[in-house]
Amino acid sequence: MMNRQIKLVEYAEGFPEARHFRLEEAPAPEPGPGQLLARSLWLSMDPFPRLRMSGDAARAPQLPLGGTMIGRGVARVVASRHDGFPVGTYVAGEIGWQDYYCGDGAGLRPVDPALAPIQASLGVLGPSGLAAYFATLRQGEPRPGETVVVGAAAGSVGSAACQIAMAQGARAVGIVGGPAQMAFLRELGVTPVDYTAGDLPAALAAACPRGVDLFIDTVGGATHDAVTGLLNVHARVVLVGTIANYNLAPGEADMGPRHLLRWIMQRVRISGFLVADYAAEWPAALRELAGWVREGRVRYRETVFEGLEEAPRAFAALFGSEGVGKMLVRVAADEGGDG
Amino acid sequence: MMNRQIKLVEYAEGFPEARHFRLEEAPAPEPGPGQLLARSLWLSMDPFPRLRMSGDAARAPQLPLGGTMIGRGVARVVASRHDGFPVGTYVAGEIGWQDYYCGDGAGLRPVDPALAPIQASLGVLGPSGLAAYFATLRQGEPRPGETVVVGAAAGSVGSAACQIAMAQGARAVGIVGGPAQMAFLRELGVTPVDYTAGDLPAALAAACPRGVDLFIDTVGGATHDAVTGLLNVHARVVLVGTIANYNLAPGEADMGPRHLLRWIMQRVRISGFLVADYAAEWPAALRELAGWVREGRVRYRETVFEGLEEAPRAFAALFGSEGVGKMLVRVAADEGGDG
Repeated sequence: MMNRQIKLVEYAEGFPEARHFRLEEAPAPEPGPGQLLARSLWLSMDPFPRLRMSGDAARAPQLPLGGTMIGRGVARVVASRHDGFPVGTYVAGEIGWQDYYCGDGAGLRPVDPALAPIQASLGVLGPSGLAAYFATLRQGEPRPGETVVVGAAAGSVGSAACQIAMAQGARAVGIVGGPAQMAFLRELGVTPVDYTAGDLPAALAAACPRGVDLFIDTVGGATHDAVTGLLNVHARVVLVGTIANYNLAPGEADMGPRHLLRWIMQRVRISGFLVADYAAEWPAALRELAGWVREGRVRYRETVFEGLEEAPRAFAALFGSEGVGKMLVRVAADEGGDG
Repeated sequence: MMNRQIKLVEYAEGFPEARHFRLEEAPAPEPGPGQLLARSLWLSMDPFPRLRMSGDAARAPQLPLGGTMIGRGVARVVASRHDGFPVGTYVAGEIGWQDYYCGDGAGLRPVDPALAPIQASLGVLGPSGLAAYFATLRQGEPRPGETVVVGAAAGSVGSAACQIAMAQGARAVGIVGGPAQMAFLRELGVTPVDYTAGDLPAALAAACPRGVDLFIDTVGGATHDAVTGLLNVHARVVLVGTIANYNLAPGEADMGPRHLLRWIMQRVRISGFLVADYAAEWPAALRELAGWVREGRVRYRETVFEGLEEAPRAFAALFGSEGVGKMLVRVAADEGGDG
């Protein structure tokens, strides 16, 4: 049984490309005592690993060159010497860009295939939905009638954040790139603004005639600056990600205007967000999210790339404007058997 | 009875200077129905009016050229056709840079001369103390054992903020300029860091071996950046002022590194602060502050310039490192009579 693995072979400056990765093959290991072997079914494409591919070690802990690329996914246990993960169990978590995960299962959680399609555990019923839930409700606190702007709004976090804000009675404005993403937001009832169409500050101002009360910022950079100019008194900004500067060259600083004076005049509250801070409350939030998905109050979309070898292309697409919804790689069909 | 007034005659780029102002003289007006005439005794030097002297109307509402310079002060009513302000009353508020205030008293509040020296109503028992109180306790929430860094810490807001933080069991580190300010902070039991001595980031790091949990930022600019590098997980930053960019030229942007990624990784909370938001709670806070001053838990200092004509120099000194404590101009001796 061979295990294909995608290795990181070069640190990236600018956008990640195929040449930063190499597909290698080796026999799948046998699970040792307390270990499990699981067949990868889906990989989740998330921006965060890009930071750890930087040639600038000061930015984030670097991944080792020659190591298997990190990434979350869903897998099915095919051999086990671990009591908590019997053969046939579906697991979600950090499994890496490979056909088979072998390890002690630390950080993996079981997935109930009866609840929803298993890959939803990587998106709306997983880290993406949880990030949208806690960032919007806990740190953002949208109120009825408020205007909420969401960055990267066609993505899995952004589209869920828009819908969660609307469920609180707020109006959602989503920043997206290109016609496919625009159309998706309109379907959801979100007012879309296309950042690829030119003058973003003017387009945002037109879409937010009563200013901005809450900004779920997943992008940073010039988008952050454009929204800042529209913030109302007592507005909140929740910093969820800074995709705009994940692709900076080593040593390149992310420079921009300091907004301190505006934040004082408007008494803005800005807060950095990591979903891990809310881990104790994930189960309750997942139950609530699952209910909203069943009721159709939170809808989601997937963009699927077929085959492990497509992971580098899928990962690059995450930083562009071609994808809609959760970006996934289907590594293998789920045969539901025992491998 | 002549009324000397200091007029704004030129918008300022960079630091305010004598040439931006002109002393003029005119007969003091007679109070009309519902008005009062009050003799200026003290003027408070505050950074905010500098913003309104900018040649850049986009930055803040501009003061009219040829108008009397705005400024808070304490005055004694010498003629009155206003029932709420009988002759002999001391009043504090926006009286302008002039010998006599004449108006309807809107925004003025009575001052009890038995409580403390009347000029304390401009500092520790007035806007400065209130700003320190609410910024530190409400938005900053210092906890025992935490490290609190305060900018412009020898000033009236900063020195009060340091002491209020220490009263909560926190350790205070104050950023100041020059030996006089360093000595004042040591007297208060605050660890001083001299920004004029060279490498501020290194000096701050040495003074904060366990990082920074709360930053009361009155300065902005490079100071803001230096402290940001030391922020701990779940640190708070309260934005009280941005003296560093009050003196920018028209159209000149305040540029610096975007800290979004660091704020996310550390889950920092940044909040803009204006003391006016807490107006309903000022009386209770003033009572508490007065108690702390009596008990010696909050000590204060004044730097006094003698004579109305010194106001431009006192105002410029506010942005330098020569002053300690509250910067005041004594316009006239308080003869305690009826004028």
